[in-house]
Amino acid sequence: MKDIQIGLIGLGYWGPNLIRNFFSTRRCKVAAIADLQVEKLEKYKNLYPGIETYNNAETLIKSKNLDAIVIATPVFTHFPLAKVALENDKHVLVEKPMASSIKDAEILIELALGKDKILMVDHTFLYTGAVQKIKELIDNDIIGKLKYVDSTRINLGLFQPDINVLWDLAPHDISILNYICSEKPVAVQAVGICHTKNGMENIAYLTLKYQNDFIAHFNCSWTSPVKIRKLLIGGDKKMIVYDDMEPTEKVKLYDTSFEYNSEAERRTILVDYRTGDIFVPKLSTLEALSGVTNDFVNSIINHTTPVSDAILGLNVVKVLESAQRSIKQQGVEIPIQ
Amino acid sequence: MKDIQIGLIGLGYWGPNLIRNFFSTRRCKVAAIADLQVEKLEKYKNLYPGIETYNNAETLIKSKNLDAIVIATPVFTHFPLAKVALENDKHVLVEKPMASSIKDAEILIELALGKDKILMVDHTFLYTGAVQKIKELIDNDIIGKLKYVDSTRINLGLFQPDINVLWDLAPHDISILNYICSEKPVAVQAVGICHTKNGMENIAYLTLKYQNDFIAHFNCSWTSPVKIRKLLIGGDKKMIVYDDMEPTEKVKLYDTSFEYNSEAERRTILVDYRTGDIFVPKLSTLEALSGVTNDFVNSIINHTTPVSDAILGLNVVKVLESAQRSIKQQGVEIPIQ
Amino acid sequence: MKDIQIGLIGLGYWGPNLIRNFFSTRRCKVAAIADLQVEKLEKYKNLYPGIETYNNAETLIKSKNLDAIVIATPVFTHFPLAKVALENDKHVLVEKPMASSIKDAEILIELALGKDKILMVDHTFLYTGAVQKIKELIDNDIIGKLKYVDSTRINLGLFQPDINVLWDLAPHDISILNYICSEKPVAVQAVGICHTKNGMENIAYLTLKYQNDFIAHFNCSWTSPVKIRKLLIGGDKKMIVYDDMEPTEKVKLYDTSFEYNSEAERRTILVDYRTGDIFVPKLSTLEALSGVTNDFVNSIINHTTPVSDAILGLNVVKVLESAQRSIKQQGVEIPIQ
Amino acid sequence: MKDIQIGLIGLGYWGPNLIRNFFSTRRCKVAAIADLQVEKLEKYKNLYPGIETYNNAETLIKSKNLDAIVIATPVFTHFPLAKVALENDKHVLVEKPMASSIKDAEILIELALGKDKILMVDHTFLYTGAVQKIKELIDNDIIGKLKYVDSTRINLGLFQPDINVLWDLAPHDISILNYICSEKPVAVQAVGICHTKNGMENIAYLTLKYQNDFIAHFNCSWTSPVKIRKLLIGGDKKMIVYDDMEPTEKVKLYDTSFEYNSEAERRTILVDYRTGDIFVPKLSTLEALSGVTNDFVNSIINHTTPVSDAILGLNVVKVLESAQRSIKQQGVEIPIQ
Repeated sequence: MKDIQIGLIGLGYWGPNLIRNFFSTRRCKVAAIADLQVEKLEKYKNLYPGIETYNNAETLIKSKNLDAIVIATPVFTHFPLAKVALENDKHVLVEKPMASSIKDAEILIELALGKDKILMVDHTFLYTGAVQKIKELIDNDIIGKLKYVDSTRINLGLFQPDINVLWDLAPHDISILNYICSEKPVAVQAVGICHTKNGMENIAYLTLKYQNDFIAHFNCSWTSPVKIRKLLIGGDKKMIVYDDMEPTEKVKLYDTSFEYNSEAERRTILVDYRTGDIFVPKLSTLEALSGVTNDFVNSIINHTTPVSDAILGLNVVKVLESAQRSIKQQGVEIPIQ
Repeated sequence: MKDIQIGLIGLGYWGPNLIRNFFSTRRCKVAAIADLQVEKLEKYKNLYPGIETYNNAETLIKSKNLDAIVIATPVFTHFPLAKVALENDKHVLVEKPMASSIKDAEILIELALGKDKILMVDHTFLYTGAVQKIKELIDNDIIGKLKYVDSTRINLGLFQPDINVLWDLAPHDISILNYICSEKPVAVQAVGICHTKNGMENIAYLTLKYQNDFIAHFNCSWTSPVKIRKLLIGGDKKMIVYDDMEPTEKVKLYDTSFEYNSEAERRTILVDYRTGDIFVPKLSTLEALSGVTNDFVNSIINHTTPVSDAILGLNVVKVLESAQRSIKQQGVEIPIQ
Repeated sequence: MKDIQIGLIGLGYWGPNLIRNFFSTRRCKVAAIADLQVEKLEKYKNLYPGIETYNNAETLIKSKNLDAIVIATPVFTHFPLAKVALENDKHVLVEKPMASSIKDAEILIELALGKDKILMVDHTFLYTGAVQKIKELIDNDIIGKLKYVDSTRINLGLFQPDINVLWDLAPHDISILNYICSEKPVAVQAVGICHTKNGMENIAYLTLKYQNDFIAHFNCSWTSPVKIRKLLIGGDKKMIVYDDMEPTEKVKLYDTSFEYNSEAERRTILVDYRTGDIFVPKLSTLEALSGVTNDFVNSIINHTTPVSDAILGLNVVKVLESAQRSIKQQGVEIPIQ
Repeated sequence: MKDIQIGLIGLGYWGPNLIRNFFSTRRCKVAAIADLQVEKLEKYKNLYPGIETYNNAETLIKSKNLDAIVIATPVFTHFPLAKVALENDKHVLVEKPMASSIKDAEILIELALGKDKILMVDHTFLYTGAVQKIKELIDNDIIGKLKYVDSTRINLGLFQPDINVLWDLAPHDISILNYICSEKPVAVQAVGICHTKNGMENIAYLTLKYQNDFIAHFNCSWTSPVKIRKLLIGGDKKMIVYDDMEPTEKVKLYDTSFEYNSEAERRTILVDYRTGDIFVPKLSTLEALSGVTNDFVNSIINHTTPVSDAILGLNVVKVLESAQRSIKQQGVEIPIQ
């Protein structure tokens, strides 16, 4: 079988990482790239003389030689570019979040189904050794029934011009939550604040509500002086702390729970900082993005569903769009379809 | 002048710390103690043969020999005990939170005013070297205009039988916020979850809204496997991280800001983890509670207002009661009087 | 049987902690205390009206009512006080280090043997939950054969007027090493530096050499701006990091080893920061010093040998005296008897 | 002026980093590369079609087109390759350590002088933002007179087949010390242990002695379960902790000193963990190796001396060779020429 011929759009921050990883992925070839900036294209042309370069995304998409399109452009362009790509019978890998609205995401999914093409979203975090290990611990019922998820993802960061902090940072945690937890949220509440004049929130707090006694909360900020990437996962058997800033000990499993059998026990339970042993599993150190590129190529070749598929991508957009509405209405509860 | 004669009610967790600190405070004497458990009284009688012991709080309060009553009992008893004490012309120091309702707190304040007695709430944190330094930095306009406060106060803790996690943990942060920030919140939103059967939330998220572009958010939990005590304070000049789990470097001042004058600047603002120097001030290592006991005694003697006065205590209760109502109504916005 | 009657000498930094712990130890009573400062004695007399106070250590020692003497005085007084106590048929608990010289320590041991009295040294660290757990891991052959021990015990500390930093800080690590490792060192090498004019080293580095391929190294300093208490223990099966500054996760067990079977393996052995899982055992949170006081009292009552017995105390002094000689001779290797 | 034509030898671990940085350095060109492995050469030939490739280092060195040779090969080959390069009138940048012996290093220096060529050693650490800031703090007399340097550089690492842990890890700290401290050591003492059968120490402790009251100590290990990169620098005015594992706060300046004027002061000096404020300067985040490549090229063009020049490289080798002799003689003191 011929190698999958890939065309990539967008040589901004993430595009070059995708190119690098596709170059070390078997059974595929980055055959063409597109960007609005000619100098960027020339730089890559020098490095990889065989590569085709396009100044126009649509021309690249319509190239007959390509099997798959990778879209690494600003969020508002995801939908139109992915749509044209699918219409032109290409497989699509699109950056997160998948689209700017639920409606757009749903149109893409239907189109992909009709065309029988892979539609995948680059939720890179799902492919990290840390999230893979957390998924394994939960699937093996080590954690027990999930009781809460609490994420803090804050730093001093680039204020994106076209999206607010929720659309920028929350997709990571929402996608992880979707991946590790089979229940779906029934409602969302979000509040935020915009400290600049463009109406884009730079701080936002998001709460997901579920039918059972589970809750998820996300703290997102571009205006923290320190970088924190901490996810707490509480089960009724054990709890996990996933600290992505730790160089090696990213995932810690705490032998801690809060199941109470009686009033007496509840009154006396207590209060040491922790109640049991801690286990710090060794994690795979493979680059997560190489997991993404391999999953995309293998899904195309084997007609399988990637881990980070379009349904997961849609679920993320559902939360984001509902959260956005909640923020604009001062935090009222918005049901999720 | 005669030493202030103090009667203390409640020999539970905090009472003994108060006794120890009053013993090393000048111009006062712990003359009497009360508790329901006779063994506890006896233990203290052995240690301090001169001390009077009471098995009944009201009898102690009505003792003619006492000038001031210290109340270290469960929250629901704060109001009735403080009320009797004030009615009997005693100065009062009451544990936080001051009372179970705004109404109760207001009655106590009026009573104290009428009787011209000191009514003080033991918001110990205000007297820590860390909070004192933060107050100084803000008062000296080092931080600039406050833009946000973000607190995480979580641990694996004793589930209190009579109050939820908000009433237990949030008073610390609300009192600090009240102390360092002159603006008052106009509304509160809170969500929470109760994982036991008694209806007391063990996780709660609280957002305070203000008229200007300032926001405060508090993350409280009794069910975290790790203990976190982190308060971020963002100003338009600098930012503070106050990490109470750090043994010495509790307060860090970041030369970081996010004031944007133009669209151009906003677009290019960067992305390094921090943008300037950090300063870690030396803090006073005096025990905070000795600050409380000294402030109480001095306020009585000098007819001055303590730092942690009843108005601040009332403001804390206002937030708590409103937050409680918001939680029970699934997080709707509740205005604060 | 009557409670053991204890007389304690020295109300400096550590004495009060010993008193507090003996008060909560069963089957004993602190009946008498001695100190040169009368105010200190009076303070305790007020607190404990029944206690006898002495301004002279020898008078206390010779009191007929006492069964055991606890010596919490400067190092140079350990020998004369312990000697008189043993000669007067008292059991003895003496602060670490046991004596200022090997010869003195040996005299005390012989005396205790002759008198059939308990002679115990307060190496408190042996009774911590951390060291108890490490001992258990080693005794159960989890770690394998010990390959190295590496300790850093540095801080900005009180320059002791009568002893150098080695005699102040190294006894902790040497006693731990003695406790967990059955092999005895054959030689010691030490270098140090004195930054003041009194000839007492404030920084010292100590290396212990053994007959097999094991090495121990201790880094001691009173002049570090940060406090570090870190002990690495390498076995051929696993390794331990004991960080005493961690509030709860003090002992970490690393599934890491460096056994090589062949040249090929040796060449390819890893470069990841670690090679396996980490396990963080829950530790006892009992106060270590209560372990000391209980062991002392029980050893007297049951005629048993305490964990921190005089032989271990002597072994510590052997290393200290030899290290001292090495320092004074610019680090030449000094054999240990 | 024509760009400096560079030939690089050695495509192992570090060579590719050098190539990448020379590619982004102005006024130079990587014109040729050499390695024993043909596949590696081919890989680069594909990436950079214009590059010349050599399977033999000497042939590359003798190429008339080259102005400068970069040597990134095992230590024992540094001397012969650098020698031929200088003899063929090339400028030389050689990996650290410069050579396997003092004698070899001195021959190279003489040769470079005679040929009037740049001879530079790649002590990359000198070009980090952290070391540049430390140098600045010391040069501006912020630290005062240096009293001690204490380094811990340990991890679980590749056991090098041809050199021991001292030759592998210590050059970093010795070069930093040489750079920031004008005094030169007069003697060295080192002990180590080899846990494998090839006689190469995997743990080593090195002490440098000076004529004044300054001491330096280096703890090096390939067999620590945790990675530590911590350098303490004590001055009589302030102290520095340089922790290279910190993502951003690598350099901390402590307002801490231990100058004593009188016995009284000495006796009462503190016990708090620290005595003053801490300052954490913002550091340059430029890649250190780009500092190396720029310094090399600029030194060639401007006939100036690079920061990491051959004299500094020789001083490092002096310490290493003397330390090696000390280890082999059980730690006797070895004078440094």
